Amino acid sequence: RFGLADEEDQIGAVTGLAWTETGGDLLTIEAVQMPGRGMMKVTGNLRDVMKESIQAASSLVRSRAVMLGIKPSQFNTTDIHVHVPDGATPKDGPSAGIAMTTAIVSLLTGNPVRRDVAMTGEVSLRGRVLPIGGLKEKLLAALRGGIKTVLIPEENEKDLAEIPDNVKEGLRIVPVTDINEVFARALTRPLTPIEWSDEDEAALQASLSGKPADPDAAESLRH
Amino acid sequence: RFGLADEEDQIGAVTGLAWTETGGDLLTIEAVQMPGRGMMKVTGNLRDVMKESIQAASSLVRSRAVMLGIKPSQFNTTDIHVHVPDGATPKDGPSAGIAMTTAIVSLLTGNPVRRDVAMTGEVSLRGRVLPIGGLKEKLLAALRGGIKTVLIPEENEKDLAEIPDNVKEGLRIVPVTDINEVFARALTRPLTPIEWSDEDEAALQASLSGKPADPDAAESLRH
Amino acid sequence: RFGLADEEDQIGAVTGLAWTETGGDLLTIEAVQMPGRGMMKVTGNLRDVMKESIQAASSLVRSRAVMLGIKPSQFNTTDIHVHVPDGATPKDGPSAGIAMTTAIVSLLTGNPVRRDVAMTGEVSLRGRVLPIGGLKEKLLAALRGGIKTVLIPEENEKDLAEIPDNVKEGLRIVPVTDINEVFARALTRPLTPIEWSDEDEAALQASLSGKPADPDAAESLRH
Amino acid sequence: RFGLADEEDQIGAVTGLAWTETGGDLLTIEAVQMPGRGMMKVTGNLRDVMKESIQAASSLVRSRAVMLGIKPSQFNTTDIHVHVPDGATPKDGPSAGIAMTTAIVSLLTGNPVRRDVAMTGEVSLRGRVLPIGGLKEKLLAALRGGIKTVLIPEENEKDLAEIPDNVKEGLRIVPVTDINEVFARALTRPLTPIEWSDEDEAALQASLSGKPADPDAAESLRH
Amino acid sequence: RFGLADEEDQIGAVTGLAWTETGGDLLTIEAVQMPGRGMMKVTGNLRDVMKESIQAASSLVRSRAVMLGIKPSQFNTTDIHVHVPDGATPKDGPSAGIAMTTAIVSLLTGNPVRRDVAMTGEVSLRGRVLPIGGLKEKLLAALRGGIKTVLIPEENEKDLAEIPDNVKEGLRIVPVTDINEVFARALTRPLTPIEWSDEDEAALQASLSGKPADPDAAESLRH
Amino acid sequence: RFGLADEEDQIGAVTGLAWTETGGDLLTIEAVQMPGRGMMKVTGNLRDVMKESIQAASSLVRSRAVMLGIKPSQFNTTDIHVHVPDGATPKDGPSAGIAMTTAIVSLLTGNPVRRDVAMTGEVSLRGRVLPIGGLKEKLLAALRGGIKTVLIPEENEKDLAEIPDNVKEGLRIVPVTDINEVFARALTRPLTPIEWSDEDEAALQASLSGKPADPDAAESLRH
Ligand SMILES: [Ca+2]
Ligand SMILES: [Ca+2]
Ligand SMILES: [Ca+2]
Ligand SMILES: [Ca+2]
Ligand SMILES: [Ca+2]
Ligand SMILES: [Ca+2]
Ligand SMILES: [Ca+2]
Ligand SMILES: [Ca+2]
Ligand SMILES: [Ca+2]
Ligand SMILES: [Ca+2]
Ligand SMILES: [Ca+2]
Ligand SMILES: [Ca+2]
Repeated sequence: RFGLADEEDQIGAVTGLAWTETGGDLLTIEAVQMPGRGMMKVTGNLRDVMKESIQAASSLVRSRAVMLGIKPSQFNTTDIHVHVPDGATPKDGPSAGIAMTTAIVSLLTGNPVRRDVAMTGEVSLRGRVLPIGGLKEKLLAALRGGIKTVLIPEENEKDLAEIPDNVKEGLRIVPVTDINEVFARALTRPLTPIEWSDEDEAALQASLSGKPADPDAAESLRH
Repeated sequence: RFGLADEEDQIGAVTGLAWTETGGDLLTIEAVQMPGRGMMKVTGNLRDVMKESIQAASSLVRSRAVMLGIKPSQFNTTDIHVHVPDGATPKDGPSAGIAMTTAIVSLLTGNPVRRDVAMTGEVSLRGRVLPIGGLKEKLLAALRGGIKTVLIPEENEKDLAEIPDNVKEGLRIVPVTDINEVFARALTRPLTPIEWSDEDEAALQASLSGKPADPDAAESLRH
Repeated sequence: RFGLADEEDQIGAVTGLAWTETGGDLLTIEAVQMPGRGMMKVTGNLRDVMKESIQAASSLVRSRAVMLGIKPSQFNTTDIHVHVPDGATPKDGPSAGIAMTTAIVSLLTGNPVRRDVAMTGEVSLRGRVLPIGGLKEKLLAALRGGIKTVLIPEENEKDLAEIPDNVKEGLRIVPVTDINEVFARALTRPLTPIEWSDEDEAALQASLSGKPADPDAAESLRH
Repeated sequence: RFGLADEEDQIGAVTGLAWTETGGDLLTIEAVQMPGRGMMKVTGNLRDVMKESIQAASSLVRSRAVMLGIKPSQFNTTDIHVHVPDGATPKDGPSAGIAMTTAIVSLLTGNPVRRDVAMTGEVSLRGRVLPIGGLKEKLLAALRGGIKTVLIPEENEKDLAEIPDNVKEGLRIVPVTDINEVFARALTRPLTPIEWSDEDEAALQASLSGKPADPDAAESLRH
Repeated sequence: RFGLADEEDQIGAVTGLAWTETGGDLLTIEAVQMPGRGMMKVTGNLRDVMKESIQAASSLVRSRAVMLGIKPSQFNTTDIHVHVPDGATPKDGPSAGIAMTTAIVSLLTGNPVRRDVAMTGEVSLRGRVLPIGGLKEKLLAALRGGIKTVLIPEENEKDLAEIPDNVKEGLRIVPVTDINEVFARALTRPLTPIEWSDEDEAALQASLSGKPADPDAAESLRH
Repeated sequence: RFGLADEEDQIGAVTGLAWTETGGDLLTIEAVQMPGRGMMKVTGNLRDVMKESIQAASSLVRSRAVMLGIKPSQFNTTDIHVHVPDGATPKDGPSAGIAMTTAIVSLLTGNPVRRDVAMTGEVSLRGRVLPIGGLKEKLLAALRGGIKTVLIPEENEKDLAEIPDNVKEGLRIVPVTDINEVFARALTRPLTPIEWSDEDEAALQASLSGKPADPDAAESLRH
């Protein structure tokens, strides 16, 4: 079952693409949430650069939560765990960034990820999709694994010249420049911003600073 | 008594299977709980990959606690300690994942583990049972230790061809793909979901964010 | 005075047995408590495996506190320090486990340890006494040090064949399989469970989750 | 798109200049904020000296927040993440200090950074701009990247003698000695101090020490 | 002034004795306190064994605070810093244990240390004074430094045979077995236990567990 | 501008003297404060001994805050950052101790440091000024940098014999033994103790232990 696409759309599970000395492979990113205090756990024998790419994915989502349809207060009462099986294989690099981001957004919005989409691309804090290496090996692995659509960084579009025709014919390859394009392609439903009033924001800030959401007290902080 | 199955069903104690250069061995996973604040302690000279597999087991259980019959609030007021004797032998690898998960579920539900069942398999955050190495040595150790039933990953079923007939005759070998199959086989009683109302969830979230479970305050967070 | 039994029964001080390349030695385990917030300090130039054996001892005691006669709430308002003099000698291994456990129970119950008892044995989280190495050297050190009774793991009983007769005649050697046998032999008074009502437990859990012990609030967590 | 200036003014994104063995390069500093408790995250494969330069930038801003137009209370309820793509390239040195500082001020004031300005310079806690290395390579990279204006430390003005004329003609090179000059040149709007009364300060201090903003209680702290 | 006894009795400053390859030396232990939350800082280029000896000294004092005349609640609202100048010389070993303990007790009781007393000895958590090395070099340094009285472990009394007569005549050498003997010799005033009622203890425990000192609430924890 | 004295008196900025293999240099110590919770940040590529010397400086100031004119409660609601530019040069050793201490006192009292004073000396927790190395190189750097007055440890006075006459004539060299002499020479105004009543102290202690400044509650802690 390793190296094959999932059999159904899943919440919080995204198919990334890995590149090793012996070729490309599918990489499953799994994210689950549980009641907690805003901790982020990452496991799967991840090296520092991949760990940092999960931190960037998390901050990207937290910093634009309202636009993505996620209540900011959710981060105070939820722990998130991102795991990349299998547990024994060391993994590194930033190129799973857009897959990490998509897994977190899918998890927190309850919006399933299309099971036949795979993706590769570094993501910046502003949501820009940055180029990656090993495109050829990754596309071969996607084809082998039954993937139908692969999202790649637009800056890698020039590398498609070296990709065999049968691969390009067997896959729908979509170049993207921004994480919102990734969400649009990979999630089964569009993302809708939530309403988040000034009162909501004041209540959240009061909760974060350990002070009661007392309108008078809030008042006295401002004049 | 090392290398032998327990004499009675136990809560929080599961028999795993280890594989070293000198052969296979039974591995006892012990879990106890105590009043606390949600800390997880792991001991037994465990290396990083095995430590991570306990984290994954823990998050799997926490993220689907209600379905497993565990109150989510229990994680706030309980510390859990997972230990793998003996204390002097270094241990590593993800293949005790399903045993770790079963130990934690048994502990938190008070549901004893069948004493004549052993198991080997990595577990993903979504509960998928992933393949392991050293199947032959592990099965030999199970037979020697008086085990009757061994749960193995379905993806390892193909390795059974190389296993001696006397081992396959002396053990009931059960391939599994999902952690729920493991619970069904290894625990003495079925797991039953608890009821967990929106009020329960709101009270828990209020407790986690340090704010009172005041319905009005909760209201003002939402409109 | 090093290498000699204590002159009187002491609370929180247990005589263990160490085994080095140059022979066996008595090892004093000292435990003290002080008002605090549940911290456990361990000192005495201890290596990782011995530090882990103190963690296991501590969790064993915490997880069965009521049965041992210790109020679970005590762990919230007490810090415990376990020290193994002398401070300059590195120490490692799990074989002081039963001595660590006994020191902590003696300390928290105020039940003195018999001064002429020494002990060696790893302990599991479930209280099983696991085998150790260096039995001969340890028994010689016990005899030299004026010890009268030595508790050893039952699984080491087979090693008694190699022990000189004068040692076996000079010491009362007691094989044990469970930590409760250790408590019965080493403490001067029997351990008596305390009463711990559901109200006590609810008050403790409320304190641990930072919420008031308000029966109504507690109610709302449950229906 | 790497190595090119942004297409529009952005909040929290600043173009720095890097210097490696193989030449100069543009370096994007990205900063985002999210509801939180005052944590600062830094990623991008940064080595210790660059991490420290972000800490200095942060303290500079926090210590003069009111003058820069930022409410000090904002630091209690906001987490900030500074990231420097790409994630796989190690980066070090203090010379991005003024760019880091500008990114944080832009983020917290909502004041966009001019897209055609790049900058290089270490910054001290007092806002002094300290000299850097690799000026020639950095200016070449700025020119290549479509940058119009480059801010450099005044102490590096002497190095301009060695810079080719076409570079000096293609760029507006502005020597600066103080971080306020950097803000004036790089941000699209002037910075305006906020009003911050003694009552605001007392409310903030009460929040920080976990005590209520009770004027009587505050009084009793002072006479 | 290094290597010479202090000119007046001081609170929180004790003269220890160090032993290096090049001979013995006086070692000043300095302790200060400040309002805080119970942190212990240790500086002076101290290696692990010496750091641990300060932890043991601290726990010894905390665990018998009432007997020594120190309010246990003081540890919640005080930070303590122990420093051993000079800052550039690495220092290790447990033999400053009794000096560390004396410095902390002097500091917390406001009881000055006699300026002409030096001391060497490891201390156990129970207050036993354990033997040390380098006695001869240490006594020579004490004599050179103008010290009048030196406290040594009784187990080192046998080493006095090798000490030159002029040293033994120039110093009052006092063998000690228990830390209370050290306090009696080194402090200028006797130590007097404080009164510490059950109400005091309940108030302290309530403060430690974050619960109000409400007698009814306390009651409900016990029946 | 590096290696030259400041052009005006500054709060929280002190000129120290460094000594490297290639000669002496001026070293600026910068300290800023911001609303916070009592954190101390130190940056500037500092090695362990210099970091420890800042901790000692901080504790010295905190432990005698009232005498220096600083409200002890200020440490609960303020974070302090000490930075030593430039950020790329590693720095070590305890000899900037008196400069660190002076920077912190200047910062917290708002008392500017005389711009033409430089200083070198280790400081002990009790405020003793301890000897340093490299005096000649440091004095040469001070002269070169336009410094008028240099404070040195009295124990280094003997080294003045080797200093060239022109250096001794160009600088006012002041030997000091105690940190209070340093403050008197380096700060522009005398330090004045503040009033700090028992009520102030009780309110601070209540704030530190998380309990309300309720006089009755305070009472019940004492009888
Ligand atoms: Ca594997
Ligand atoms: Ca596009
Ligand atoms: Ca063993
Ligand atoms: Ca199956
Ligand atoms: Ca020793
Ligand atoms: Ca038995
Ligand atoms: Ca890259
Ligand atoms: Ca200028
Ligand atoms: Ca020195
Ligand atoms: Ca004696
Ligand atoms: Ca530099
Ligand atoms: Ca003088």
